Amino acid sequence: MPVWEQAISLRILISEDDTHDGRPLHEAILKAARKAGLAGGKVSRGVAGYGRSGHIHESWRGFSYDLPVVIEFIDSEEKIDAFLPTLQRLRQGALVIRERVEALLPDDAGANP
Amino acid sequence: MPVWEQAISLRILISEDDTHDGRPLHEAILKAARKAGLAGGKVSRGVAGYGRSGHIHESWRGFSYDLPVVIEFIDSEEKIDAFLPTLQRLRQGALVIRERVEALLPDDAGANP
Amino acid sequence: MPVWEQAISLRILISEDDTHDGRPLHEAILKAARKAGLAGGKVSRGVAGYGRSGHIHESWRGFSYDLPVVIEFIDSEEKIDAFLPTLQRLRQGALVIRERVEALLPDDAGANP
Repeated sequence: MPVWEQAISLRILISEDDTHDGRPLHEAILKAARKAGLAGGKVSRGVAGYGRSGHIHESWRGFSYDLPVVIEFIDSEEKIDAFLPTLQRLRQGALVIRERVEALLPDDAGANP
Repeated sequence: MPVWEQAISLRILISEDDTHDGRPLHEAILKAARKAGLAGGKVSRGVAGYGRSGHIHESWRGFSYDLPVVIEFIDSEEKIDAFLPTLQRLRQGALVIRERVEALLPDDAGANP
Repeated sequence: MPVWEQAISLRILISEDDTHDGRPLHEAILKAARKAGLAGGKVSRGVAGYGRSGHIHESWRGFSYDLPVVIEFIDSEEKIDAFLPTLQRLRQGALVIRERVEALLPDDAGANP
């Protein structure tokens, strides 16, 4: 049976319109996290939400702007903590969420690799 | 360094075909939560899932119907609790998930605001 | 007022290009979980991420390949545990994340069913 390890899920909630040096902010955060060696990097885009303005933004099947984007990483507490100062410089005041989780890490290959 | 605050992640799992007063249910929930001042409102749409019927519904790159939709809010326990009676009236028996998380709240502006 | 029950969120992070017997891996996992009677089955597709290769893959509004896909289930600890040997055979070494959550289960119908 697999061995569960303690890990941290770190999520950053930004807008798709947020930028850093003229490029999408999610891209800057993803690149910085890859450089820091964080695992499980994934960017997902919501279809509706409301930003700090309080206005509802929606893209169900058409026009959209300012939709929510969540970037998530899953790694050890040490690696997540080491990344926080970098994230603090990049996050532009965005909501950041941290949760303790249990993980079967990717290098723990299954029976059908 | 940032200060982590205790917060609650509240997620509601519905179908994109659920409605309330002739409009999509996710819209009614999002509007009610905005009115209640909940932060971090985000709606995401799955590309596949199975509803209460047990049938698998999928939209990978084409036709779709009855896909899962998740609405998430992140806020203090007090504000989430105050929203629950409203959600209870709107949820139509849907799965609701609640988790304790740590958050850097949006008003805690970073070094690069 | 609703009664919160202890539950487990189980998430599996794979790539959209992973296959099992010539079909998408997410499909095989979803079908196996439905057969095991797991609730809350939902597949979501990221718009960017980096796989085990460390290369960033992105599909904002155009071409894409090898994007991250997350499959999530929410059910009791017993049912999740019973599903793990099946998942272990299917996961191909992928990252699996487990979290304790509180849930209002779908059969607990709301006031407006």
